[in-house]
Amino acid sequence: MDRPMPPGWDHAPSATCAQVGEHALIRWITARLATAPSADLLVDVGDDAAVVVPRRNHVDVLTTDVLVDGVHFTRAFSDARDVGHRALHVNLSDVAAMGAEPRWALLSLGLPPDLEARWVAELIDGLVDAATALRVRLIGGNISRSPVLFADVTVSGAAKPRHVLRRSGARVGDELYVSGEVGAAAAGLAWLQWQATAGDAAAGSMHDDTIAAAVTRFRRPEARVALGIQVGRNKAASACMDTSDGLADALRQLATASGVGMRIEAGALPRAAGLASVAAATGADAETLAWSGGEDYELLFAVPRRSRRRFAHATTRKGLPPVTRIGVCTKDADVCIVDQEGRVQPVPGGFEHFGGRG
Amino acid sequence: MDRPMPPGWDHAPSATCAQVGEHALIRWITARLATAPSADLLVDVGDDAAVVVPRRNHVDVLTTDVLVDGVHFTRAFSDARDVGHRALHVNLSDVAAMGAEPRWALLSLGLPPDLEARWVAELIDGLVDAATALRVRLIGGNISRSPVLFADVTVSGAAKPRHVLRRSGARVGDELYVSGEVGAAAAGLAWLQWQATAGDAAAGSMHDDTIAAAVTRFRRPEARVALGIQVGRNKAASACMDTSDGLADALRQLATASGVGMRIEAGALPRAAGLASVAAATGADAETLAWSGGEDYELLFAVPRRSRRRFAHATTRKGLPPVTRIGVCTKDADVCIVDQEGRVQPVPGGFEHFGGRG
Repeated sequence: MDRPMPPGWDHAPSATCAQVGEHALIRWITARLATAPSADLLVDVGDDAAVVVPRRNHVDVLTTDVLVDGVHFTRAFSDARDVGHRALHVNLSDVAAMGAEPRWALLSLGLPPDLEARWVAELIDGLVDAATALRVRLIGGNISRSPVLFADVTVSGAAKPRHVLRRSGARVGDELYVSGEVGAAAAGLAWLQWQATAGDAAAGSMHDDTIAAAVTRFRRPEARVALGIQVGRNKAASACMDTSDGLADALRQLATASGVGMRIEAGALPRAAGLASVAAATGADAETLAWSGGEDYELLFAVPRRSRRRFAHATTRKGLPPVTRIGVCTKDADVCIVDQEGRVQPVPGGFEHFGGRG
Repeated sequence: MDRPMPPGWDHAPSATCAQVGEHALIRWITARLATAPSADLLVDVGDDAAVVVPRRNHVDVLTTDVLVDGVHFTRAFSDARDVGHRALHVNLSDVAAMGAEPRWALLSLGLPPDLEARWVAELIDGLVDAATALRVRLIGGNISRSPVLFADVTVSGAAKPRHVLRRSGARVGDELYVSGEVGAAAAGLAWLQWQATAGDAAAGSMHDDTIAAAVTRFRRPEARVALGIQVGRNKAASACMDTSDGLADALRQLATASGVGMRIEAGALPRAAGLASVAAATGADAETLAWSGGEDYELLFAVPRRSRRRFAHATTRKGLPPVTRIGVCTKDADVCIVDQEGRVQPVPGGFEHFGGRG
């Protein structure tokens, strides 16, 4: 496996966190972060706390989310840079879902003493690269000993108050749109899990580009940052949330928060290209992956009919992912799916972080 | 043990997190948080992220710190409310050390599925009580499954830019002050550890009030929030940091950040009243606890001589802890201690989170 050394990392490749030590790790991280001074950053890493200047006439958007080894990732399927990238993007996705621009990140790392220190440096490397690409700065955090590896990230963003997108703003008649495609990350994970048990026999299938894309989507999700900002600025949506726990979960949560029902056209779902290939190769159920598979980090929007053209205008800018209309908000009490034959069924259950799928 | 039921908690006392489930836990937490609306809180818990209004002409102060079960606390020595209180205060201390007023908190909880759910409710109860007492609001966070229990808190505060206290502002000749007393928390912990091994034989010593106070200081540290804000507002200090990793560590870090040496008078140290009793009972070394014991969350200030009166004025307000002058910043390269006989020795080593005491 290609593992370029993180810039400036000069410890023995197999040295553990305990051997390198907290202070040396923090020194390396601080050096890795060193970038141009910013007028908005009064106190950077190295003090008791970071100090930043809020953006004028904007509000602060704050969120925190954690990746725990063995729960949200395994080191068998994701390398350290993937984990760093993802730890940031799961938070960027929440900020994007509010229509806000992410600005600052804090990182709280829990590290087993016997973990390779180089692995930690690679995680930081992946996180900082992901942050730099979106002009987000890592401005603080802490390193702690822990029996299990975890990376807890907090992101702070900014939006004008009138541009903030809530979950609760959808009204009866509003149309529902989802960005990108659904089920890609779940398909990628299903393929990795199958490959791990099937061994060499599985290697051939990887030549399928759609599977490779699904695996990448799982390993390095791309939060829809620019899209969330655009839609917020154009005031083109009445509600928004991300699909981190799957589309079905997002639909139900947005419906509950807004006090509406929903009618979703099954045929309209922008299913990930890799779903069919993964289902064929592994025997996984493509529909379950599409509706209930998490980790896509797409955005779900409710759009008033009168804002349809404005929404189309905001979402067709260069570089933005496609958006697809998948249904409408109703005055019913539940979220239902209508298939191509007109049959109606309730939306499948979602993810419970303790209990598996309910 | 007296364990009042958290308000509104109606699950079976022995129900686990897995049995109660993530959604029910979040519903209970949301109900527990419900307080008066605030014009500064545009979006509260329950959306993708929280949205708050920055204070006019103030900067944002951001910090994050985690408590991991078995590393930063053990359930044998701290109850759930203690852990919730402490998870908040370790962060409040960082905000106070910047001279800022804490405003908002986020909580990322990692929970083993077999942990008693009531324990989690009690932790939240302790954290919310501690927050309410200081007019801080818990506005978001997440709950995740984890093989080890952890509570990661982020706090955001506000300060006027010119009131921000940094570590790096101390100059040669500035005097050093520490708040409260040193070694209390370490003495409390040493006593609990000794009691756990000594068993019933230890029970008698607890009648000593100074030991009881040390144990309370360990279990429920009180960040010096009002003191930090006062000193910041009065621009009476050139530098500040908290003593979370012990006084010796704080001295060395502040000296390094400011590019000065220090000369500390051993006799001046405001040693905790419980230190002698704990040392006598347990055989622990009182001096090691006083210099290197962590978890005190006192504030260390550097004060220019010309600001001495202003500092005295700012720190003698009602309700603030005492501050004690312990030494002076020098042009030497190191931090040294002078004892009552005039002997000079280097300050003892500090805490490395992976490697024990260095």
